[in-house]
Amino acid sequence: MAVNRVETDSMGAIDVPGDHYWGAQTQRSIENFPIGIERFKWQPPVIEAFGILKKAAAQANSELGELPENIAALIVRAADEVISGKHNQEFPLVVFQTGSGTQSNMNANEVIANRAIELAGGVMGSKTPVHPNDHVNRGQSSNDTFPTAMHIAVAQELHRNLLPAVQKLRDTLAAKAEQYQNVVKTGRTHLQDATPITLGQEISGWVAQIDFALGVIKAGLPGIYDLAIGGTAVGTGLNSHPRFGEVAAGHIAKITGLAFRTAPNKFFALSAHDALVNLSAALRTLAGGLMKMANDVRWLASGPRCGIGELHIPDNEPGSSIMPGKVNPTQCEAMTMVCVQVFGNDAATAFAGSQGNFQLNVFKPVMVHNVLESIGLLADACRAFNDHCAVGIEPNLDKIASNLEKNLMLVTALNRHIGYDKAAAIAKKAQHEQTTLRSAALALGFVTAEQYDAWIVPIDMTHT
Amino acid sequence: MAVNRVETDSMGAIDVPGDHYWGAQTQRSIENFPIGIERFKWQPPVIEAFGILKKAAAQANSELGELPENIAALIVRAADEVISGKHNQEFPLVVFQTGSGTQSNMNANEVIANRAIELAGGVMGSKTPVHPNDHVNRGQSSNDTFPTAMHIAVAQELHRNLLPAVQKLRDTLAAKAEQYQNVVKTGRTHLQDATPITLGQEISGWVAQIDFALGVIKAGLPGIYDLAIGGTAVGTGLNSHPRFGEVAAGHIAKITGLAFRTAPNKFFALSAHDALVNLSAALRTLAGGLMKMANDVRWLASGPRCGIGELHIPDNEPGSSIMPGKVNPTQCEAMTMVCVQVFGNDAATAFAGSQGNFQLNVFKPVMVHNVLESIGLLADACRAFNDHCAVGIEPNLDKIASNLEKNLMLVTALNRHIGYDKAAAIAKKAQHEQTTLRSAALALGFVTAEQYDAWIVPIDMTHT
Amino acid sequence: MAVNRVETDSMGAIDVPGDHYWGAQTQRSIENFPIGIERFKWQPPVIEAFGILKKAAAQANSELGELPENIAALIVRAADEVISGKHNQEFPLVVFQTGSGTQSNMNANEVIANRAIELAGGVMGSKTPVHPNDHVNRGQSSNDTFPTAMHIAVAQELHRNLLPAVQKLRDTLAAKAEQYQNVVKTGRTHLQDATPITLGQEISGWVAQIDFALGVIKAGLPGIYDLAIGGTAVGTGLNSHPRFGEVAAGHIAKITGLAFRTAPNKFFALSAHDALVNLSAALRTLAGGLMKMANDVRWLASGPRCGIGELHIPDNEPGSSIMPGKVNPTQCEAMTMVCVQVFGNDAATAFAGSQGNFQLNVFKPVMVHNVLESIGLLADACRAFNDHCAVGIEPNLDKIASNLEKNLMLVTALNRHIGYDKAAAIAKKAQHEQTTLRSAALALGFVTAEQYDAWIVPIDMTHT
Amino acid sequence: MAVNRVETDSMGAIDVPGDHYWGAQTQRSIENFPIGIERFKWQPPVIEAFGILKKAAAQANSELGELPENIAALIVRAADEVISGKHNQEFPLVVFQTGSGTQSNMNANEVIANRAIELAGGVMGSKTPVHPNDHVNRGQSSNDTFPTAMHIAVAQELHRNLLPAVQKLRDTLAAKAEQYQNVVKTGRTHLQDATPITLGQEISGWVAQIDFALGVIKAGLPGIYDLAIGGTAVGTGLNSHPRFGEVAAGHIAKITGLAFRTAPNKFFALSAHDALVNLSAALRTLAGGLMKMANDVRWLASGPRCGIGELHIPDNEPGSSIMPGKVNPTQCEAMTMVCVQVFGNDAATAFAGSQGNFQLNVFKPVMVHNVLESIGLLADACRAFNDHCAVGIEPNLDKIASNLEKNLMLVTALNRHIGYDKAAAIAKKAQHEQTTLRSAALALGFVTAEQYDAWIVPIDMTHT
Repeated sequence: MAVNRVETDSMGAIDVPGDHYWGAQTQRSIENFPIGIERFKWQPPVIEAFGILKKAAAQANSELGELPENIAALIVRAADEVISGKHNQEFPLVVFQTGSGTQSNMNANEVIANRAIELAGGVMGSKTPVHPNDHVNRGQSSNDTFPTAMHIAVAQELHRNLLPAVQKLRDTLAAKAEQYQNVVKTGRTHLQDATPITLGQEISGWVAQIDFALGVIKAGLPGIYDLAIGGTAVGTGLNSHPRFGEVAAGHIAKITGLAFRTAPNKFFALSAHDALVNLSAALRTLAGGLMKMANDVRWLASGPRCGIGELHIPDNEPGSSIMPGKVNPTQCEAMTMVCVQVFGNDAATAFAGSQGNFQLNVFKPVMVHNVLESIGLLADACRAFNDHCAVGIEPNLDKIASNLEKNLMLVTALNRHIGYDKAAAIAKKAQHEQTTLRSAALALGFVTAEQYDAWIVPIDMTHT
Repeated sequence: MAVNRVETDSMGAIDVPGDHYWGAQTQRSIENFPIGIERFKWQPPVIEAFGILKKAAAQANSELGELPENIAALIVRAADEVISGKHNQEFPLVVFQTGSGTQSNMNANEVIANRAIELAGGVMGSKTPVHPNDHVNRGQSSNDTFPTAMHIAVAQELHRNLLPAVQKLRDTLAAKAEQYQNVVKTGRTHLQDATPITLGQEISGWVAQIDFALGVIKAGLPGIYDLAIGGTAVGTGLNSHPRFGEVAAGHIAKITGLAFRTAPNKFFALSAHDALVNLSAALRTLAGGLMKMANDVRWLASGPRCGIGELHIPDNEPGSSIMPGKVNPTQCEAMTMVCVQVFGNDAATAFAGSQGNFQLNVFKPVMVHNVLESIGLLADACRAFNDHCAVGIEPNLDKIASNLEKNLMLVTALNRHIGYDKAAAIAKKAQHEQTTLRSAALALGFVTAEQYDAWIVPIDMTHT
Repeated sequence: MAVNRVETDSMGAIDVPGDHYWGAQTQRSIENFPIGIERFKWQPPVIEAFGILKKAAAQANSELGELPENIAALIVRAADEVISGKHNQEFPLVVFQTGSGTQSNMNANEVIANRAIELAGGVMGSKTPVHPNDHVNRGQSSNDTFPTAMHIAVAQELHRNLLPAVQKLRDTLAAKAEQYQNVVKTGRTHLQDATPITLGQEISGWVAQIDFALGVIKAGLPGIYDLAIGGTAVGTGLNSHPRFGEVAAGHIAKITGLAFRTAPNKFFALSAHDALVNLSAALRTLAGGLMKMANDVRWLASGPRCGIGELHIPDNEPGSSIMPGKVNPTQCEAMTMVCVQVFGNDAATAFAGSQGNFQLNVFKPVMVHNVLESIGLLADACRAFNDHCAVGIEPNLDKIASNLEKNLMLVTALNRHIGYDKAAAIAKKAQHEQTTLRSAALALGFVTAEQYDAWIVPIDMTHT
Repeated sequence: MAVNRVETDSMGAIDVPGDHYWGAQTQRSIENFPIGIERFKWQPPVIEAFGILKKAAAQANSELGELPENIAALIVRAADEVISGKHNQEFPLVVFQTGSGTQSNMNANEVIANRAIELAGGVMGSKTPVHPNDHVNRGQSSNDTFPTAMHIAVAQELHRNLLPAVQKLRDTLAAKAEQYQNVVKTGRTHLQDATPITLGQEISGWVAQIDFALGVIKAGLPGIYDLAIGGTAVGTGLNSHPRFGEVAAGHIAKITGLAFRTAPNKFFALSAHDALVNLSAALRTLAGGLMKMANDVRWLASGPRCGIGELHIPDNEPGSSIMPGKVNPTQCEAMTMVCVQVFGNDAATAFAGSQGNFQLNVFKPVMVHNVLESIGLLADACRAFNDHCAVGIEPNLDKIASNLEKNLMLVTALNRHIGYDKAAAIAKKAQHEQTTLRSAALALGFVTAEQYDAWIVPIDMTHT
C-alpha cells in the first residue's frame, strides 16, 4: 500500500491513496457515497467519454486562446490515456452521488490534471502546472460536461455495440424468412387456429418489428448528438469562450466519427435530458418487439410432444435438474428477462427525466446508467440469442403439416364463394362432429368435392 | 334553462346556473378546468363519501359544541340526500383540478349548504343560515377532508364491489379444482412437457394465487381505515376541536360499518398517501395473478385442433368477422386487458404518491381516481370472467389423455430407481427415435417391462 | 321502449332493441362484457374512424370490382352518417371486450348494414341487400380493420386536438421568453443559488423542451400513417383483392387529408402495434417536459412571502377552504396530475404492446384507449394551462432584484481573473459572515473595488 | 492456468477449468449466456442462500432416510464452506440465463458435489461418491430450489441489511423531531405559505411515513417465509419424501433464525412469485416515502440566500466545478436517484411476475435480482443519508423566524372569531398593499389590537 498523499479542494485538505491519481473531491465522494459500490461504479464507456470530452475541451480552449498550448498538450496526452482505458481503475465513483455528476467530472479533472502534472515532472496534488478546475475544466461546468459525456457514451455504445448486435440477429431472421417462404403452416390469432401463412411470412413479421425498432432508435440519435458543452453552469456559457461549445463539439465529432454538434438551447440541455428519455423509450420498443419474437419462438417450439411443436430450436444445455432429458427454450427466457429489465430501466429513466428543477436536472447519473445498462444487456442478449438459438431455428415439417391439415380455418377460403354464414356452418359441423372440414362441407352440400379441392388450397391462401 | 343566480366567494361574485345547488367555487372550477370532462367527473363512490364525511363532521361538531344543533341537523339532512345519490348531478367537477381536491370539497360544502338553506326556507347563495365554510366545512380543510373522502370511497368500493367479485371467482375455481382433482394431465414448465399433475392441482395454483392477493388487499385495509380528518390545513388541527378527528372518524365508522379511525399522525396523513399506494400495489398483485390465470386458461384452451386444447371454455360470441366458426377466448382477453390497465393505473398512483412536498401531496385526485378505476375494472372483469368463462371451464378428456400418454417426462419417476443419467438416456432415445418411452426404456435394458409398468404410474406421480 | 328485433349471427338468434341499428354480435358483447360501462365506451374519434374506414373500404371494393356499385353507395351513405357523429349512440361497446376489437368492428358493420338496409327500404336484420360481413366487412377482418381504425383515430386526434393545443402553449411561452429576455435573475442548480440568467433564458428552456417533444411526436406520425388494412385475418390478405389495402388506404388519406398508406408488412401490422407504443412514449416525453415546466412555474411562484416568489401567476380561485386569502398554483397541479396519468397510460400501453402472440396482438383496445386518453388529457391540460396560467405569468421584479443582489454565485465571474480557489474563499467568507460578496472580496484583498464592479455585472454574466 | 478437466452431463462431455469446482452445466451456461457478465453475476446473498438450502436439504434427506449419513455429512461440510463465502468465485453465472435458475441450482450442486468429492478424497467430475443430481439435488428440482434460495436471500438481506439501516435513519429523524418540537415555522401546502407548524411536527411526518413503510415491509415477510422446497418439478413433490419440504424448511429456519416454513400450495409457489412482487411494492412504498423526505430536506435547505433556507445540512463536498463556494444537497440527490431506481426495479419485478405460464414462472432470476438490488441500494442510501446528512440537519432559526413573521396565513386563526370571509379580506389587503397582517386587520377594523395579539399566536396554532 502506497503512502497517502494530501490533496486539497475548496473544503480543505484530505488524504488520498498515494498510488492513485485522483484528488480531493474524488476522495470525498468515495467516503460520502458508499452506495452500491460492488455494482455501480462507472463502466468503461463513461470513463472513455470523459477522456474524449476533456481532450476535445483542451483542444478547443487551445485553439480559442483560452489555454496555453503546452498545458493543452499535457491534458491531451493524459486524456488519451484515459480514452485508452489505461486509467479505468482511477475512476472509483458510483452512480449514486451528486445528481449533476460533479464528482465524476472532478474525478476526470483530477486524474487528468495529476497525470498531466506527472508527465510534466511536477508534484501530484500541487495543481501545477495543470489545475483540475482552471485548466482541465476550463470553460466547463459539471452541468454541461456530465450530460456531454452521457451523450458521447450512449452514442458510442449504440454504434459499437447495440446496433450491430441487433442487425446481426435481424439478418439471421431475415435469412430464415427467405429460406422458409414456402413452408405453409397454421396461422394463429387469439391463440386459436386461423388461416394459413407461410413460416417465412411469420418470421418476416419479426424482422419487420425489429426493423421498426431499429428505425426508432436511429431516429433518436440526432437528439443524442446535441451536446450540452458550452452551457457551463446554468446554460449561459459563463466563463467559456463564446465559440467554445461549437469548437469542442467539433473535436468530439472528429474524435468519435459521430455527428455531434453543440445543442441549440443550452438551458434545455442542462435542465432536461429528454433525448435520453426518448432513446430509452426506443430501447423499450425494441425490447417489446424482441419479447414478442422470443415468446413466439418458444411457443412454436413448445412440446416436444404436448405443445405446438412446429419449430425446433437448439438444445444447448440440460433443462432440468430433476426431469431427465428435458430441454428448455433458455435463450428465449434470457431474452425475455432482459426485455423486462429494459422496461424497468426505462421506467426509472423517464421518472428521473421528469424531475428536473430550474436550470438543472439532478438525476443525470441514474439516467445514463439505466440507458447504458439497457444498451449493454440488449446487445449481449441479441448476440447470445442469435448465436445459440436463432441460427438453429428449423421447422418441424411433420408437425406443421399435420397441424395444417386439421385446421378448420381453411374454411375461410369459401367465404367468397358461398358466403360467411354457410362457411361458418361447415366449420361448426366439423368441429362438433370431430370430422374433417371436407367431409362436413360435402355433407352440408354447400360445395362439391371438386369445388372444395379447387378452393381450399392452403398455399394459395397465403397470397405469397 | 333556469335563470342564473349570483354566488360569491373570497374572489367575488360569479353567476351560477339557477337550477343547481353548487356555488361560486364549483363554478370557477368548471370554467377553469375543462379537462377530460366527458370521462373524468367524479363517480358516485366519491360523491357518496363526501356526503358521509360531511354528515359525520356535522354530527361531531354538534356533539362537541362547535355547531348549533339545528344547523347540524340541516347539514345532516342535506348530506343524507347526497349519500343517497339524489344529488349526483350537482357534482360536475373533474379529477384534474387543484391537487388537494379543494374544489370538490367546496363543491360538497356548497351543495350541502345551499340544500340545507333551501330546507330551512332560506335564500340559496345567502350562506344563511348555513355557511359552506363556517358550518359545513367547520373544523375542516380540503387538506384533511379530501383524503378522508378518498379513504371512505376506496374502502367502501373494496368491500361492496371488489372483494365479493373476486371471492366469487375464487370459489368457482376452487370448486373446479375439487371437481377435477383426479384428472391426471401433463404438467408444463418452460412451456415444455413436464411431469404429470392433476387438473385440480393446476387450478388449485390459481386459487392459491387469488387467495394470496385477497390477503394482500385485506392487509392493506387498516391503512385505508386511518383517516386524515382532524388535521385541517397542515396537520396541526388548527380551528378544529381537539377531539374532532376522533369523534368524526367514529361517526364515519358507524355510518359505513367499517373500522375507520383517526390517523395517528396527521402530518403524514396530509402530505403522503402511502396507504393508497400500498393498496394500489395490492391491486396490481391481484392483476398479476389474474393475468397468469387468464393466460393459462386461454393457452390450455388453445386450438381447437392445432394448440394445446386441454380445456373447453364457453363459446360466447363469433370470434371473427372473416373466419367462419372461429371462437376466441374473449373473456381471457378482456381480463388481461384490465390487468395491464391496472398496472398502468398503479404506475400513475405510485408516481403521484412520491411527489408530495412539505405539508401536502397535491396529487390526491389523480391517486384516488386510479385506485377506484382499478377497483371497478377488476370487479367487473372478475364477474364477467366468472359468469361467462370460469363457470363453464371443462376438461377435454380425450386430448388430456392423449397428451399425457406421449409425455416423455413420465421418465422422471425412474430417477429414484435407476438414477438421473440413465433416465435421461431413455428420454433422449425416445425423442430421437420418436418412439414411446416404454419401448426406449426396454430397448436400453435399464428396466424390465414389469418395473416400467409398476414405476411409471402417472396418477402416483401427482402425489394426490 | 321500442319492441325488440331478432338478429342472427353464426351463434344463432338474439333479441336486440328495436330502436337501435346494432345487430347480434354487438348485443352479445353488451351482455358478455359489462366492464367499465360508465366510462369505457368508445369515444367519438374511434367511432368516426370506423366510419371513415368502412366508407373507404366500400369505395375501394367498388373500384376493384369486389362490390356492386349500388351496395357500395349505400354503405358510403351510412358510413358518412357514422362519420358525422349522428349514430354515436349506436356504439355501446366498451374497451374491455375481445382483444382484437372484433365486436366493435362488427358493431360498425352491423350499424352500417342495417342503416344501409333502411336507406334501401329493406328489413333490418335481414342482411339484405347489405350484409354486415359479406359487404360492409368485404375483404376485411377485425384484425386489420381495428388497428386501421386505431391509427386513423390517433392521427386525427393528434392533428386536430393535441398538436394545436401544445403549439399554442408553446407560442405563449415563447412570447414570454422574448418579452423577458432582459430580466436578469438568479439561476438555480441543485435548488441552490447559481449564476445569473435572464427570465427569458429560463423560459426559453421550457420552449425548447416543448419543441423537442413536438418533434418527437411528429417523428412518430409516419408509423401511425402505416395502415394494417389489406392484411385481413393473419396478414396474408386472404379474401381481399390484392390491391385492396393500397386503394383503401388511399381513400382514407383522401377523406382525412393525412398521409396514410398501406403498411409494408402486414404480419407486423396485425401482431404488434409498436408505432402506437412509440407514439405513447412520445406523449410521455411531452408529459415529462410539461411536468418540469409546471413544476418550475409553481416553485418560482411559491410564497407569496416565504417561498421563492419570483413569478406572479393568475389567481383563479380561492385556494383553501380553511385558509382565507390563500391562492394556489392550481393549473400547475392539474397539469402535473395529467402528466402522471400519461406516464401510467404509457406504462399500460407498452406492457400491452409486448404481449402479442403469433399473428395477433390481442391488447388492441386497451392500447388505443390509453393513447387516446393521453392525447385528450394533454390537449385539454395545455389549453387550460395556457388560458388560465401561462398567459398571465409575470415577473415579480422586486423579488427578482433582491434575490439577485444577495446571490453569492455572482462570484463565479471572478474565476477567470483570480482563479477558482480564491473565488471560492470569497464566497465562503461572505456566507460564513453573512456579508455581501463585495465586502468579502475586498476584505480578502483579492480584487479592488474597481475590479469588482467591472467584473461582477450580472447582465454580462448571462451572455445574452 | 490449471489444465482443464472433463465434466459430463446428459448432453455429454465438456472441458471445464481444472482449478474450479463447477461442472458441465455451469460451464455450458458460461458459454451460452455471456450477458451482462461484468455486473450481473450473482451476489453473495444468493450464493449463501444456495449453501443454506443445500445444507438443509442434505440434513432433511438424511433424517428421512433418503440419503446415507456419510454422503449427507460431506454435503453439509461443502455447503458450510459455500455459506461462509469461501467459494464465491465458484459461482460465475449471471442473472440472464434460464428463467428457472436451473443453471445456478446446478452450479450449486456441482460445486458442492465436487468439493464433497474432494473432501472424500475422490476424483472431481466422477460424481462419486457424491452425485450433483442424485445426492446434492436429492428430492429437489430447480423449480423449487431456486425460488427457495430467492426467499432465503431476500429475507436475510431484509433483516441484516435494510431494516437496520432504515431504522437507524428513522431514529435519527425521530430524535430531531423531538429536539425541534417547539421550533415554530411556516407550514406549506401547494408550495404556498400555510398555517404554522413546528419543525418537530414537520419531521414527525417523515418519521410516520418511514414507520408506515417499515410496517408494510414487515407485513410482506410472511409471504417470503413460505418456501417452495418440496414441490420439486411441478409442485407435486414427485421424487421427494412426502415430509421433505416441511423438514427442510425447518432446517432452513434453524440455520437462519428466521420463521421459514413450507409453502401451503406448491403449485402457486413455483408458478408465481407474488410474495416477491408484493415485497417489491413495499420497497417502492419506502422509496416513495424517502423521496418525499429527501425532497423536503433539500427544498427546506435551498438557498443559501435565494431559496427557502430554513434548514442547514452538512457541507460534505464542493458543489460545483465552476461555481466557487457552492454546496449542494448531494445526499438528497443520491437518495432520490436510488428511489427512482427502486421504482424502475419494481416495474421490472411486477412485469416479470405477471408472465408465468402453467406450472412455472420463468422470470425468477430477474425478479430476485431486482428485489435484492433495491434492498441493497436502499440500505446503502439510508446509511449514507443518515451519516452524512440527517444527523447534521439543523434549523436556520433566523430564517425560520423571519419567514414566520411575514406569513399571511396566520390569519387563519381569526376564522373562529370573525369568520372565513372577513379573515380572507384581511389577508388579501395585506398582500395587495404589502403590509403586515396586523396592520391590515386593524385598518379593516375587524379586530382590535388586543384581540389580534391574543388570537394570533403561532405556537398556539400548532396545537402542540
